[in-house]
Amino acid sequence: MPVVSAKPLEEFAARVLTAAGLEPEEAAVIAGGLVQANLRGVDTHGVLRLLQYCDCLAAGEINPRPRVRVVSRSAGAVLVDADGGYGFRPTLLAVELAVELAREHGLGLAGVRASHHFGMAAAYAERIAEAGLIGMVTANTGPVMAPFGGARPALGNNPIAFAVPRRPEPPLVLDMALSQVAFGRIRLAAAEGRPIPTGWAYDSRGRPTTDAGEALRAGLLAPMGEHKGSGLSLIVDVLAGILTGSPVGHEADAHGRRRGGVGHLVLALRPDLFLPEAEFHAALERRLTEVLATPPAEGVERVLLPGDLELATARRREAEGIPLSAALARQLAALAERLGVGPPPWASAPDESP
Amino acid sequence: MPVVSAKPLEEFAARVLTAAGLEPEEAAVIAGGLVQANLRGVDTHGVLRLLQYCDCLAAGEINPRPRVRVVSRSAGAVLVDADGGYGFRPTLLAVELAVELAREHGLGLAGVRASHHFGMAAAYAERIAEAGLIGMVTANTGPVMAPFGGARPALGNNPIAFAVPRRPEPPLVLDMALSQVAFGRIRLAAAEGRPIPTGWAYDSRGRPTTDAGEALRAGLLAPMGEHKGSGLSLIVDVLAGILTGSPVGHEADAHGRRRGGVGHLVLALRPDLFLPEAEFHAALERRLTEVLATPPAEGVERVLLPGDLELATARRREAEGIPLSAALARQLAALAERLGVGPPPWASAPDESP
Repeated sequence: MPVVSAKPLEEFAARVLTAAGLEPEEAAVIAGGLVQANLRGVDTHGVLRLLQYCDCLAAGEINPRPRVRVVSRSAGAVLVDADGGYGFRPTLLAVELAVELAREHGLGLAGVRASHHFGMAAAYAERIAEAGLIGMVTANTGPVMAPFGGARPALGNNPIAFAVPRRPEPPLVLDMALSQVAFGRIRLAAAEGRPIPTGWAYDSRGRPTTDAGEALRAGLLAPMGEHKGSGLSLIVDVLAGILTGSPVGHEADAHGRRRGGVGHLVLALRPDLFLPEAEFHAALERRLTEVLATPPAEGVERVLLPGDLELATARRREAEGIPLSAALARQLAALAERLGVGPPPWASAPDESP
Repeated sequence: MPVVSAKPLEEFAARVLTAAGLEPEEAAVIAGGLVQANLRGVDTHGVLRLLQYCDCLAAGEINPRPRVRVVSRSAGAVLVDADGGYGFRPTLLAVELAVELAREHGLGLAGVRASHHFGMAAAYAERIAEAGLIGMVTANTGPVMAPFGGARPALGNNPIAFAVPRRPEPPLVLDMALSQVAFGRIRLAAAEGRPIPTGWAYDSRGRPTTDAGEALRAGLLAPMGEHKGSGLSLIVDVLAGILTGSPVGHEADAHGRRRGGVGHLVLALRPDLFLPEAEFHAALERRLTEVLATPPAEGVERVLLPGDLELATARRREAEGIPLSAALARQLAALAERLGVGPPPWASAPDESP
């Protein structure tokens, strides 16, 4: 299993995306976002996505030269048009604009329309928190979950991320999809012949199932908290999709079967809206200390805060490198060869003899 | 089981609260909120609360004469001080101010500090939607849930409500607490000797339990979606509690053991922030029609939207009256007698012979 440092992996990803048709600046931004996800241990949103992104670019489903621009601006809110390209660059712009608005007016809202996959939502919320503000970022996706009481996919697992600045600690970051689990965990259970807990997925008739294979065949993820996650997904469709003028539901497709498939919404709030910033931070640290002091459940070492695991993984991987599975490494090497961008950083020097 | 019309029940509740020490105007607002919850079928937040509220008022835990006032105002945000009284009146004021700000600036945020129980969160979000805007309302509460991996209550079940205006239908309303279920459902299972599903509660060592009795003894509700609801509760503590300068966590107490125990946050957004209002409504109706057309799961008649059940209950109860359990009716009658406010509307005329 190759272990690769973040920087060469990011450069490799940027080369691949450039060869797939993106402008170098756009490729670099996306490569940075993917590797940031790998660093945090969110490998589902890491360089694994290069395979999908290059397929979508090759199929012409993504605008490789998007003209990302602000199309509406008022005192409290701006709208960015992603022009059918990937969501990374327009959402970073939305974050920047929301932070500017919030600095001036206390809170700032930025929508992104006609966008595609933007990687890990946490990255954008975290950037707001690093600027000293409270951030919320959300996106709609195509349907993968059953609505409560339904037997067909009709709802996105619409991610929501929050980040709260801390002093001097790194931000508190919560990033969650609205399905109870991702398909990946069900695939793993199926591969290992294990049952899944009820509450993860439904069978093809919409009934709770513990059979991982049946769950994969039905393709019906359960919303977290049943009717609660179901309702919340619809609310995110409204906020990220409908409000921004982006496609939602069966018209939406974060995986790129059409140009401009989803929308995003970014909210930034000043922590000192209503009280001095030092008081906000003192109260926050008191609260977090209190939660961390909760006696752990049997078999648990200690209670963690949202984002603690990801932060620990990032520190480890920054020092030790990012492990890639042998299968992924092979697929990425084949992709690089097909695109003619030279060997990946984990490959030994290519054999140049005839 | 008495069945009572909303209006006389509301008048009765107002008389009780006035006799318990509230000013008539404040009592009328709270009585209206409680009966609105009963109408929607949310009986946990209905006139049942008169018992608790009168106890708290008698114990001096609630300010019966709060000076509700705006203490901070900027272009995008206002803060209302509840002055240690109940949350109904200050949150209605916050809603009004958030709607005003949103009409002018596109979005408006209003915090409420030093507050107490505000009844059903949906009522406030719905009022924003009735004004034509998208509403979000949230509140922190005292600890009733285990943080993920913990074995003691440390997190509130912090309700979040959203409402989205529809034309011409009544608003789409989602109101959820962040525990998977309320204690009431576990109490019911225990009373009926039924096990509870895993995912509802933990035992005293923080392990998932299916034993309803054990769950009640431990008093550890499970967050919806495990680590997801756990993290989200902490985010609501930040938004509703810390940001507004209100107590959070173990310092917070929505049930009134101290004056000014919790905070609330209200956000209003114009649906026409980024696109013409008619387009927003057309896209929303297309999306809702799509979700409603999902084939239902086996044993389910049809897929419902968030708030559909509550709306149906409200229509029925507006026509037929609100059923009260015999036990609740007795307790309320005893309360009324103790406070000397005359018989409840469901009692036969009192025997006035000596």
